[in-house]
Amino acid sequence: MSLDDPEPTREKILEATYEALCKHGYGDLTIQDIADEFEKSKSLLYYHYDSKDRLLVDFLDSTLEEFITDFHLTEETPREQLERLLDRLFPNNLDEENYPLQIALLELRAQAHHSELYQKQFTEMDRLFKETLVDIIEEGIRTGQFRDVDAELEAELLVSMISGMRTRRLTCQDFQVEESRRAIEEHIDRRLRSE
Amino acid sequence: MSLDDPEPTREKILEATYEALCKHGYGDLTIQDIADEFEKSKSLLYYHYDSKDRLLVDFLDSTLEEFITDFHLTEETPREQLERLLDRLFPNNLDEENYPLQIALLELRAQAHHSELYQKQFTEMDRLFKETLVDIIEEGIRTGQFRDVDAELEAELLVSMISGMRTRRLTCQDFQVEESRRAIEEHIDRRLRSE
Repeated sequence: MSLDDPEPTREKILEATYEALCKHGYGDLTIQDIADEFEKSKSLLYYHYDSKDRLLVDFLDSTLEEFITDFHLTEETPREQLERLLDRLFPNNLDEENYPLQIALLELRAQAHHSELYQKQFTEMDRLFKETLVDIIEEGIRTGQFRDVDAELEAELLVSMISGMRTRRLTCQDFQVEESRRAIEEHIDRRLRSE
Repeated sequence: MSLDDPEPTREKILEATYEALCKHGYGDLTIQDIADEFEKSKSLLYYHYDSKDRLLVDFLDSTLEEFITDFHLTEETPREQLERLLDRLFPNNLDEENYPLQIALLELRAQAHHSELYQKQFTEMDRLFKETLVDIIEEGIRTGQFRDVDAELEAELLVSMISGMRTRRLTCQDFQVEESRRAIEEHIDRRLRSE
């Protein structure tokens, strides 16, 4: 790699994938669409990935890495960390970047039964998401901010609830985002906050 | 319609659609696949539906009608009615009929952002699902079996939770169906059952 171009090729390919997904969606996406967003040669792209599916699985993997990097536990209180997680996964507004990405993730998820690679990836996503929630809840219990609940059970319910809200927002007309957000905040406070 | 064939054409077409969806999934489905499952002429099929999308939207509509017919409120207690709803939407086992249908519904949902027709249909599905839950919860409050909760809020949370569980079951490996079911039962009892 030259000094003028310190960014690794994988990152550039994944950026191109992101751009192509936002433009074309998953359904119509071809590897040529990705190549069109990639400034280097198509053969370099094929050198790294032998199929569109492998590339998309690596793309999913990179969104997961980003999520983990962002969600190292911080100095915030456990309740604030839950807030940040919700802001991230269920923001009040989906901007022009975030909306097509969430649509693409939903379309990819709906394909998971066709492909063991995708299935593994979504299993790992949900596992990590749940683990993050368990860590936050257990920290809250340890510090006395949260009641002594079953952290596994609460995390399991939250993963499904947030996943469901994300999907419904993308697929229903006039979905009441703020109302749903308020409902989940109330659920969290009722279930977790110590009196 | 002859006396030998009292079943309306629409029903036969929708049955053929169901068979074709189970065999081919949504992604690869052509109107020819549906015609292949239909004992009458392809032109009769086109006479009733001018596109694959309109046919699939009517198919979604028919699953909704079936749901409503099944879920008239009965003599059961509100808690038993919730139980029946869960058995229906999140059964412990997905048999050979139910699994491909749920996959097809997920694939169709993931396409909703492309098509206002689909979006309307899924909006209506979720609205009716929520309304059914609100009715059951309000009946429980009225009869004193449930606490005096905010029925709208509880129903909103349950719709998202059950939707999320349904999707995760279809898209994750080794998803713990019975554990999730237990978690949602506990959630219902904790939140709703009067002491």
